[in-house]
Order: sequence, then structure tokens, then C-alpha cells
Amino acid sequence: MSSARIPRNKENDYSHEAAAMRRAFIEDQGQCRLEHVGSYSFDPATLPGNIENFTGVVQMPLGYAGPLRVIGEHAHGEFYVPMATTEGTLVASYSRGMRLTREAGGVTTTVVDDAMQRSPVFAFSDARGARDFGNWISEHFASIKAAAETTTRSGKLRNIEQYAASRMLYLRFNYTTGDAAGQNMCGKATFAACRWILDNYPGTIGRYFLSGNMDTDKKHSQLNTLHTRGKRVIAEITLPRELLRDLMRTTPEAMYAARMASQLGGLMAGAVHNGVHPANGIASVFIATGQDEANVAESHASLVHAEITPEGDYYYSVTLPSLIVASYGGGTGLATQRECLESMGCYGAGKAHKLAEIVAATVLCGEVSLGAAVVSEEWVSSHDELGRNRP
Amino acid sequence: MSSARIPRNKENDYSHEAAAMRRAFIEDQGQCRLEHVGSYSFDPATLPGNIENFTGVVQMPLGYAGPLRVIGEHAHGEFYVPMATTEGTLVASYSRGMRLTREAGGVTTTVVDDAMQRSPVFAFSDARGARDFGNWISEHFASIKAAAETTTRSGKLRNIEQYAASRMLYLRFNYTTGDAAGQNMCGKATFAACRWILDNYPGTIGRYFLSGNMDTDKKHSQLNTLHTRGKRVIAEITLPRELLRDLMRTTPEAMYAARMASQLGGLMAGAVHNGVHPANGIASVFIATGQDEANVAESHASLVHAEITPEGDYYYSVTLPSLIVASYGGGTGLATQRECLESMGCYGAGKAHKLAEIVAATVLCGEVSLGAAVVSEEWVSSHDELGRNRP
Amino acid sequence: MSSARIPRNKENDYSHEAAAMRRAFIEDQGQCRLEHVGSYSFDPATLPGNIENFTGVVQMPLGYAGPLRVIGEHAHGEFYVPMATTEGTLVASYSRGMRLTREAGGVTTTVVDDAMQRSPVFAFSDARGARDFGNWISEHFASIKAAAETTTRSGKLRNIEQYAASRMLYLRFNYTTGDAAGQNMCGKATFAACRWILDNYPGTIGRYFLSGNMDTDKKHSQLNTLHTRGKRVIAEITLPRELLRDLMRTTPEAMYAARMASQLGGLMAGAVHNGVHPANGIASVFIATGQDEANVAESHASLVHAEITPEGDYYYSVTLPSLIVASYGGGTGLATQRECLESMGCYGAGKAHKLAEIVAATVLCGEVSLGAAVVSEEWVSSHDELGRNRP
Amino acid sequence: MSSARIPRNKENDYSHEAAAMRRAFIEDQGQCRLEHVGSYSFDPATLPGNIENFTGVVQMPLGYAGPLRVIGEHAHGEFYVPMATTEGTLVASYSRGMRLTREAGGVTTTVVDDAMQRSPVFAFSDARGARDFGNWISEHFASIKAAAETTTRSGKLRNIEQYAASRMLYLRFNYTTGDAAGQNMCGKATFAACRWILDNYPGTIGRYFLSGNMDTDKKHSQLNTLHTRGKRVIAEITLPRELLRDLMRTTPEAMYAARMASQLGGLMAGAVHNGVHPANGIASVFIATGQDEANVAESHASLVHAEITPEGDYYYSVTLPSLIVASYGGGTGLATQRECLESMGCYGAGKAHKLAEIVAATVLCGEVSLGAAVVSEEWVSSHDELGRNRP
Repeated sequence: MSSARIPRNKENDYSHEAAAMRRAFIEDQGQCRLEHVGSYSFDPATLPGNIENFTGVVQMPLGYAGPLRVIGEHAHGEFYVPMATTEGTLVASYSRGMRLTREAGGVTTTVVDDAMQRSPVFAFSDARGARDFGNWISEHFASIKAAAETTTRSGKLRNIEQYAASRMLYLRFNYTTGDAAGQNMCGKATFAACRWILDNYPGTIGRYFLSGNMDTDKKHSQLNTLHTRGKRVIAEITLPRELLRDLMRTTPEAMYAARMASQLGGLMAGAVHNGVHPANGIASVFIATGQDEANVAESHASLVHAEITPEGDYYYSVTLPSLIVASYGGGTGLATQRECLESMGCYGAGKAHKLAEIVAATVLCGEVSLGAAVVSEEWVSSHDELGRNRP
Repeated sequence: MSSARIPRNKENDYSHEAAAMRRAFIEDQGQCRLEHVGSYSFDPATLPGNIENFTGVVQMPLGYAGPLRVIGEHAHGEFYVPMATTEGTLVASYSRGMRLTREAGGVTTTVVDDAMQRSPVFAFSDARGARDFGNWISEHFASIKAAAETTTRSGKLRNIEQYAASRMLYLRFNYTTGDAAGQNMCGKATFAACRWILDNYPGTIGRYFLSGNMDTDKKHSQLNTLHTRGKRVIAEITLPRELLRDLMRTTPEAMYAARMASQLGGLMAGAVHNGVHPANGIASVFIATGQDEANVAESHASLVHAEITPEGDYYYSVTLPSLIVASYGGGTGLATQRECLESMGCYGAGKAHKLAEIVAATVLCGEVSLGAAVVSEEWVSSHDELGRNRP
Repeated sequence: MSSARIPRNKENDYSHEAAAMRRAFIEDQGQCRLEHVGSYSFDPATLPGNIENFTGVVQMPLGYAGPLRVIGEHAHGEFYVPMATTEGTLVASYSRGMRLTREAGGVTTTVVDDAMQRSPVFAFSDARGARDFGNWISEHFASIKAAAETTTRSGKLRNIEQYAASRMLYLRFNYTTGDAAGQNMCGKATFAACRWILDNYPGTIGRYFLSGNMDTDKKHSQLNTLHTRGKRVIAEITLPRELLRDLMRTTPEAMYAARMASQLGGLMAGAVHNGVHPANGIASVFIATGQDEANVAESHASLVHAEITPEGDYYYSVTLPSLIVASYGGGTGLATQRECLESMGCYGAGKAHKLAEIVAATVLCGEVSLGAAVVSEEWVSSHDELGRNRP
Repeated sequence: MSSARIPRNKENDYSHEAAAMRRAFIEDQGQCRLEHVGSYSFDPATLPGNIENFTGVVQMPLGYAGPLRVIGEHAHGEFYVPMATTEGTLVASYSRGMRLTREAGGVTTTVVDDAMQRSPVFAFSDARGARDFGNWISEHFASIKAAAETTTRSGKLRNIEQYAASRMLYLRFNYTTGDAAGQNMCGKATFAACRWILDNYPGTIGRYFLSGNMDTDKKHSQLNTLHTRGKRVIAEITLPRELLRDLMRTTPEAMYAARMASQLGGLMAGAVHNGVHPANGIASVFIATGQDEANVAESHASLVHAEITPEGDYYYSVTLPSLIVASYGGGTGLATQRECLESMGCYGAGKAHKLAEIVAATVLCGEVSLGAAVVSEEWVSSHDELGRNRP
């Protein structure tokens, strides 16, 4: 390739012409065709804030799974769930799980926590300096909160956690962010708060960074699992024994045995969560609904807990401790993404918790569907002798 | 919503008419419009194997970042990198990093390992039974390999790791999979291998599951970081001090100090890797090029190592231990995705390692770009007194 | 062996005669001699609460390291540190580090947090039941605190953290426990608190266990690293470049390079902390001073952070996030253990923080001593060509 | 304190007189008495290699638990287990568990792996240099093995794992070490191997350290859990339902429910293993038998797996993946420690696996004993209404 450059002054030109020029440039540079990439139906004037160097689109196939019956506090009823994916069987597998849970009466969902973070770090000449600073922060929370909230109408500073190491103090600002995912909102508010701190702290601060990584943005962490990033949502169901037999050709005992073997394997492997594949459902719904697709990194964590009930049925729950979803802002307003949200009644103000519940219920369906598949595959195909020993 | 159903016999109908019917059904059910979702340019007959219940598309905005200069063994030269995202500043930030690394001479990339897994688990009456089984597996590797490879032309069984816990033995089958990501290939091959094992093992196997979760599919694990899942790729560069000053208005020392504060914060938080945001670059390139978007869960792990060189420059490296990429199969052949791959010369046979190198170089650019931004933001905006104390 | 039994009614007989009988019994059963085991100098009547089936003693060799110069808030001056160990070079290595830090002016120590836990778990019919319960707990904190504190004079209930998963709520009761380690104190107080809760909660509790494992007793956890178990202590020092050269034949740069290589290795290995061998110093001081030796599991975690200062010296810090030490109760009153505590002025009321500071300073000395040894070994012995490339 | 020093030339003087002089010095410095510390029965001339600055002893109370019935491959029969501890109830609780397992027929134990490590790291100018080096290492394994084994009679180099990150290659040398724990043996052998490598590698090595921390010495790591450090031992038992009822006043279901709640809590907390308190049994047996007490850090990891059998009994297993024990060398030859080993027939050549089995069986007894206690405490004391809901 030559070293020709896309002119920088075009970066924020969102016209059809600019996109066409970029495609022509790439076609020339890469000796390729960008025909389908140039085929899109929306008005690119809606794009500022979502992308730079707009060149066209990727057309992700979209399928609907469902109906999914949700017994939530925000989502109540049956929903068809839009999933954008290129992985065959994904939509079918989630649909299969949705049928199972629907016939079992639906998935109960509960949002139990809600917080988004930015975590600056402050360094001092020694650990005592950091400790003094921490005490001062606690005493001045009201002022810090006021400073942070000057920058946002919907963001509220809930609390500030403190973590001490070496001569540094890490602060973790926890906000509620309304229906937006809120990372940028939290960044701006925390920046304002830090300015206030830097202007008012009577002691000497040696160094300061707006992020000390304890927000663990775009990566999984145990801290997220403990203290929530985004929504903490729990999906639950009790699957009757007969239903598992009739629909999935399996039993609570067989599914449970597979789950326990998988759980031990994951523990030994140092897997970050004990679910099977929440990432599949989350990624496909995230892409369909304009969520930040990189947040799959944080959101794919889960805590699965199952029990065989005294009645012999199968209680199954999935806790998503750091599910980052928005019904407003980010990519949610783009043409196809908004349509997908609207098809579930999840676009705009007051809908983020509803969306969180639907995603959590979807994830649960995918877990039980794949869980049953692993078991019945064994059932069908494995050695005869083997079968006889299985509980 | 009513409980009307999308007819099951339509699940695999990929015609325009079927998609239109599904859209009409969803519009009716959700009291919404699916106008843009219905606007796509490819032939849906290409979709089988990628989605079920095909209803339309999500149009993801696409921007090109670059040019990225790569000094790889498979990728060599300058590339414009397609990124599909809805997160504003992402393309611009990666482009900024690409400019920096280009002016520093380019990013050196090396693929050091390549393996895809499926990990069945076998249970026995006691731990000694599991140990005996493990010995037998070692002795019969050639036969197991032959059985596995009957199912695939491009997959090769490299080795089988064994992990013992309780009365179970977890086997981790490692394959090379050519230019495909290979999860399904590994599943089929391992299934065949397990059949051979079940047919031939002279002892008694109590229970068997095709996955015991030590493949840690669709989730991050320490095991992946240790033993690779997909490609293990390393991207490196030495950034001259002057270049950092001129382009980024910062110094190696300031960037390094921020990195070390971030690294300690991440360690304390239990973050799964010590990079900043590889998930951003990976997710957007994955979507653009038809990779399995849920594999962001595994692929976002990184090991960053930086040094200030004796000459005062900034050596920076990113190791991606579990980057799952394909240049063939999966979603790579879809219209827009293929165009994106072709624009980098990365479509088809013999291109997976090239793509892996480009992705790793891209990730590195995003890391140094955001790393510099965090620091220069501090530089510009923070308290005057603060600046004086900084090294 | 026959199946003869040590009579159960002797379990709590702490007389010399009972011990002698037990030795005779073991000698008979094991066809062995317990001569030295029977040689002890203290009055066994002091033992109730420390051991059952008292049979004699293990004589652990004791060496003193030091003097260690501590610049603490509770420990100030020079101390000889008692270390009970059977690992050769341990005392010498720590002494070497103590000499280095003493000549550098001493180790600065700071206790920044103090908390001991018990964490009951409550299960409900669904997640909403757990959430309601959590709200009720928050509202009734004062009463719960009062109930807990009826059982103890020195323990104070500081706060109750809540962690939700599935239909369970995990509570983590944080206490300050004065100069005792406090695990039993916390257990009793939490038991009383739970009784009050069970008696007063108006809703239905499905199941309750006094420990749901989020106290992570006798094991390391990320939660301990984040939120402290025992004392959170930070030890710091700046080691002058010349001193490292003269005493350790090394440089800050060489030590730092080794530290960074070690840190990356540990991250890749999934090591639970980034120190080198805090367990050595902690275990030997714990045994010498009558601490609970199993608490090495929790206490050995560390967060090491080092910097080469702008002046070219070596700043080094060790944060111990979960150091469990007592100057009173447990094994601290036993004859030799008490003597060891008294030799540092650390026995009895008001001395736990002093002891924590001495232990943290000791750990730091061991880290820099071994760190320098690894480097100078390389220095001396490695290939000539190698040496020339080292910074 | 004054800054008087213990004369350095006395460090290796192991006479009674030297010890007395040191005690007098400490008594003077610390204004204290070291009476009991000076009471020991062994010949200090046996101490070289175990401690420096020998000053006296710590007398750790010793109790015997048991008898423990072990159905091992190396340990077979009933054993009284020496436990040195200052934690009240520990010996009694383990004894209670030993009675339970004895009446259930005994604990089956199996050693499934055995490896000790040293892990040097080599740095190069870039990642390709590291990769080339790795290939060369594989090709020259026989020579490297020969070089390593020149330094030891009992140590055998089994294999060398390779881990690549940045421009470094971490090697993990795995040895079998006979009946010694073997850390020093591995260090010396690896040092010799590295010398051979440095002398013979035709390329340029930029830097080398004898430990790159992937031996994860004196700390827990996921790598140890995966690939064993010391012995990997599995203890198993099936506890009849009636026995649990009669002896422990509980049921398999109640114990299992507590285990599952604990397991989820530990997972959420980021606990490093899913056992309850292996550290207790391990620490106390380690001290009694002259093991390196700091190895509790590595050894306390466990993988517990339990099942309610189809017959309604309780299968329980503990896998210890990194149990470091020796029957020879280190502190095993000291007077009281050797007596403790001999009382189990575990001193000297060919006894390390026997000891490993006894420790693993002991740990299992402690787990079921405490597990039952947590449950029956609930049983007895909790709210009446609560009891009725329990399965």
C-alpha cells in the first residue's frame, strides 16, 4: 500500500459524499470492492457521537428469538428478542430455551443494584498522606457530590469507595445514570469532582490520574462481581421435572450432574464465572440494540446457582453482576438499533431496567438450553454401558 | 402481547419473503416499525449456518482507522482497519495511536502459538479409576488422534492435556484449525474421539460429558492466558521520546507512571488482565470482519509489558493470549464482512495469522492512544502544583 | 495398628500425667519414641483453649533477626524480631534486609484499616425476598449492632456489607476486635445478631447458615484484598542507590527489572499477589508469637509497588491487606510465645497495631533482600555477554 | 533500644553457649525474660541448615487426633496424626471428623501427580527472539536435563513448560524430588541448567533471572492448581446417611445445601479455593512434622467436590493440587519433628507419598467435621419456622 492518508479534516464529515469518498479511497488502497458496505438506509447525519471516518455499514444478520415470557418488575409479558449474530444455532438455541421457560411459566427477573463508575487515583509522598486524604474525602462528600453533579442532570453520585495501596488512594465513584450506560457521564462528573478536590484539598497531592483502573472499564474484574457495574440482575425459574423430560429429553439430575462437573472444571481452569455462555446472548442482543459491544467484556460475568428442589424439579438462577445496558444514548438511537429496542418496548426514558430484565431472562434461557443439549447429546450418543450408570 | 408464534417450519427459510413475513409479525406483535431492519443488500441465501429466523439486519456504522503500519511475519505494510462500532471517539482514538506507531516505524507482531480446544470430562468410581484412564489415554494418543481427525481435513489434534480433580479426569484436546476459528470443528472431532474412547476403553466409565468447561468457551480463564485459545500474538514497539512529546504532549515517564498506577489498581480489583481497553478494538474489528462477537469474552485478555529503555524511549508490548480470529468460515463470508476482510487482504485461505497480527497491532495502538490521553488530560487540566511534582 | 482409642474423657485433661499417658499410648501404637516431644517447660494448666489431647510440644528453632528499624505510629525504634522456622537462610536473609533498611533510615509503617468478619447467608424463596431482607437489614442496623455487641466487650460492629446472588443474601459483618484476632468473637457476636434477626424479621427466611464463606476464613480471597481482613498495613522505604550498590552489589534498575519480570510472570500464572515471599516472614513470626498459624493463608497476600525515584533511588512498598495479628488471646499467652512478644514490647493490651507494623516492616525487609539476591546472583554468575546488555 | 548488634560471626555458632549469649543479649535489649525459650532438649549441633542466630525454641503445644483410617496406596491402616497448634477446638474437630470417616470405612487417598519447580525467565530484544529460544530449548531438552541432573542424585527433570509474554520466555522446570520437598534442589539444578543454556545458546540473551515467578514459590496460584506443585493428592469417602444422622445430627441434604451456599459465596468473593479450612489441618501437621511452614500458602488450596449419591449417601472428595510435603530433609530431622513423623511411620526414604496421603485424609476429615458443625449449629439454634423449610 502507498502511504496516502484519509484527509483528517474529513473525519467528522458525515455526508453520503464523504462516506463514498472514503469507500473509494479504501477500494483503491486495498484493491477491493466495498459495495455492500455502502448500502445503508439511515441518514448519516444521525451518526455524530457514534463513529468517526464513517465509511458505510456492516450488515449484521438479525433473527428474533422467542417469545420469551418474563415475570419482571419492569418487563412483564412475552417478548420477541432481537439477536444480531453470525453464529449458526445461536438464535435457535435461545429460542429452544425460551420455549422451555415459557412453558414453565416464565422467567422471574429482579434488578437488585445499579451503579456506574469512574475511579481516579491520587498519589502522595507516603501512605499516611493517602490515609489523611481519604479521611478528608469522607468528610467532604457533600461538596464533592455537588461538584460532580454540576455536569449532569441524570447522573447522581451515590457513594465513593476507597481502596488503599502503597502511597496511593484509589477512589471509586459510584453513580446512578438513569437510562444511559453512563460511562462518559461518570467520566465528566468525576473530572469535575477531581477538579474541586484538587482546588480545595489543603494537603499536597503528588500525582493524580482520572482513572486508576478500579472502574475496570472494558474488562472483567472480581470487583465488578462484588460491587456491580451497570445493573445487577437476577433471573430465576423452577423447571418442572416432566417438562425437562418431555421437551429436553433429560432430567434435573442429569443436568445438575453436568453443571457440577462444569463448575469444577471452570474453578480449576480459573474461569471468571460459572455460567456456560452468557456472552452469546449478551453480545447478540447488545449488537442488535446499540449497546457498547465492548462491554461484553464486563457483562458476560455470571453467577449460576441451581438446585434440585425437594419436589424433584430444577431451580435455576443466573445472577448478572455487571450488565451494562442503556435504553437511551450511545448507539440506541441509530435506525436499526432503535427499531430493535422499540420492538420490545425498550427505547427511551425509563426503559433501561426493563431491558436489563429481558437480557437476564434471555441469558438464563441460553444457559438451560445449552445445558440440556450437552446432557442429551451424551444421552443419545454415548456408549450403552455408560448410559446405565448415569443417575 | 398475544402468544402467537413464529411458525417453526419457517426457521430455516432464508427467502426475502420469509424475512418480510417475520418483520410483519414482529411489527404486529411489538406495535412497532422494522423499516431499516428490512434494508439489506446481500442475498439471504448465503445465510444458512449463520443465523436462524432471519428477519433483516442491524446496520452497524463502519469507520476505517489507519493507516496502521505492521511489521509482521504475515502482515507486512500499511493497512486501513475496518471498525464497526457505535462508540464515539473509538475510531479516532485508534487512528491517533496508529499515527503514533506509524511514525515510530510500525508495530512488530509475532504469532507464537495457535490452538483451539474442546475439553470432555470423564467420571469414574474413584480417583484411581480416573488416574488409570489418564494413563490409558496417554498410551493411545495416536489412535485417539486418528479418530478425531476422521471428521476434519484442516483440523489437527496436537496434544491432550489432562487435569485431575476428585474422581473425574478433564481432558483438553488442543487442535490447530487452519484458517477457521474452529470451535465446531473441535467439537465434532472430539466427539468422534470420545466415541472411540468409549468403545475401546477396557475399564468402566461412570459418566461422560463432551464439555467439562476446561475449554472455557465464551469466557475468560487463567487457563486460556497460560495455554492459549485461538492465537497467541505479541505486538511490540519502541516509541521515541521525542515522538511522544511532539505528537502526544507527554513523556515515557508520565505514561509509565500512569500505567503502573493502573496496573496496581487492576491487581487490587481482581481485573482479569492488565491492559486498558483491548475489548474496544477487538469488538469493533470482530464485528466488521464476521468474527464470533461473543469471543470478545475470551479475546479481550491481554498482558501488557512496558519499559523505559536505557535510551529514554518507551518500549511497549501487548500479548494477546487468546485471540480467536478466522479468515474463513463462520461470518467471514457474509457480504459486508467479507468486503472488510478483503480490504485488508485477509479473506480466505492462509490469512488467519495475518489477521491476528493486524488485530494485535490495532490493540496496541488503542492502548498507547488511551494511555497518552489519560496522562495528557492530567497534564493539561490538573492543578498547577500537581504538575510540578510529576517526574 | 490396632484400633485402640485415646479415651475421650481425657481430651480436656491438661495434667503432666495425662500428657505422659498419651505419649505412652502413641509410642505403643506407633512403635516409636516421643522423648523430645515430652520435654517442655511450661505449666500445661495454661493450655485450655489452645489445644485438646495435649501430648507434649514441638520444639521449633527460634532465631532473632535484626535489629529492624521501624518508623511507625505504634512501633518506633529498633526491634529484634523472633522468627521460628526450620528453613535455613530465612533468618539470615531477613537480617540482611533489615540491615539494608536500617542503614536507609528505617521502614515507615502505617495501619490504614482494621476489620474482622463473619458472614452469614440467608436464603429466600426468590431474589426479591432477598432484596427485601437486605433493605430491612439496613434499616435495622442499630438493633443488630446492639444484639451483636451484647456478647463482647471489645468487639464493635462497624458495618454490614451486603452481597446478592441468586435468591440468597450474603451479609459480611465487619468488626473491630481490639487486640485480639477476633474470629471467635465475631462468630459469637454474629450468631447473636442472627438470632435477633431470625426473631424479628417479619418475612420468611428459607434457610440460614452462620457462614456463607464471604468471610473467606482460612483462605485467600480478592475480597480480603479489597476490603481488609485483620489489619491493612503499609510498609514503605526509599533505598538510596549507593546503599544498594555498597551493601547488595546491585542497582535500582536491576532490581526493578527483576521485579517487573516477576510481576508479569505472576500475573500470567494467576498468582494471588505480586510479592515474592511474604509467607516466609509471616509464618515464622506467627509461630514465634502465638498467632494462628493457619492464618498464613489469608495473611500472605501482598501488593508490592516500587518506583525508581527521579533522584535514582529505589522506593519500595508492601501493602498487606489482610494481616491477622493479635497481641492478646489465642496463643499469645503461652510461655515461649509470650516471651517472644514481650521481647518486642508487643504483649497485651494496645499492642496489636504495633505488632502489625513490625510484621509489615519485616516482610518488606525479606522482599528487598530476596529481590537483591536474585539479581546479584545473576550479576555474578551469568554469561559475560549477558552482563553487557543489562541496563 | 540501643543499636547494639548481635555479632555477625556468631550467626552460625550453634552451641548452647552461643544461644545463651543471644538470649542474654535479647533480654537486655528488650528488657524481657527468655526463660522458656531457652528450654529445649535437642542437641543444637543438629541445627545447621535449619536456622541462623539460634536463640532457643518456641514450644508449640502438640495434640494427637485420630485414629484416622486411611485406605491409601502408601498409607494403609489407622494413624494418630500429630497436630501442633494454638487454636482451641482444632484437634477436637479433626478428631471428630476422623471418627466419622473411620466409622464410614476410612478415607481413600490417591497421589496422582508429583512435581517441584523453578522457573527462570529469559528476555530478548523482541518476541521473535524469545520464540526462537523456546524452539531451541525444546530441541536441547536432553542436554539441559543432563546439566540439571549433575547437581542432584534424587532430583529428575521431568519436563520444561514454556510461557511466552512480551519479549520474554518463562520456563517452568518440573522435577521429581524423591522424598524431599525439593525447592533448593530444584534451584541448584535449574541454576546449572541455565548456565549450560547461557554457555551454549547461539543467539543473544538480553537478560536472565533464575526465577521469573512462575514457580509461584510461597504463594498460591492458578498455575499450581492446574499443574501441581508438590504432590497432587485426592481424598475421597462416601458417608452413609445414617452415620451422618447418628454421629453428626445432620443429613447429606443439609450438608450439601451449606456447601453450595458456601461455594457460591466463595466464588463471589474471589476465594482461591472452594474448601472450608484445609489451612488448619495442613498448618498444624506441617509444624508438627518439620515441613516448611510458609508452604501453607501454596498447600492450602483445594478443590472440593461432593455429591449426594443415588442411594442417598454423601460422597465427598478433596483434591489438594499443591501439597508440599517431605519425609526427609528440611526440618524433618529435628528432634520433635522426627518423632512426630516416626509416630506415623513417615520418616525417611520412601515415605513422602505416605505422608501426603495422611495429610489429605486429615484435611478431608476437617472439612466434613466443620461442614457438619455449621449445619447442626443451624439445626439446633435457628428459628423454629426456619427448620421446617429446610430440605
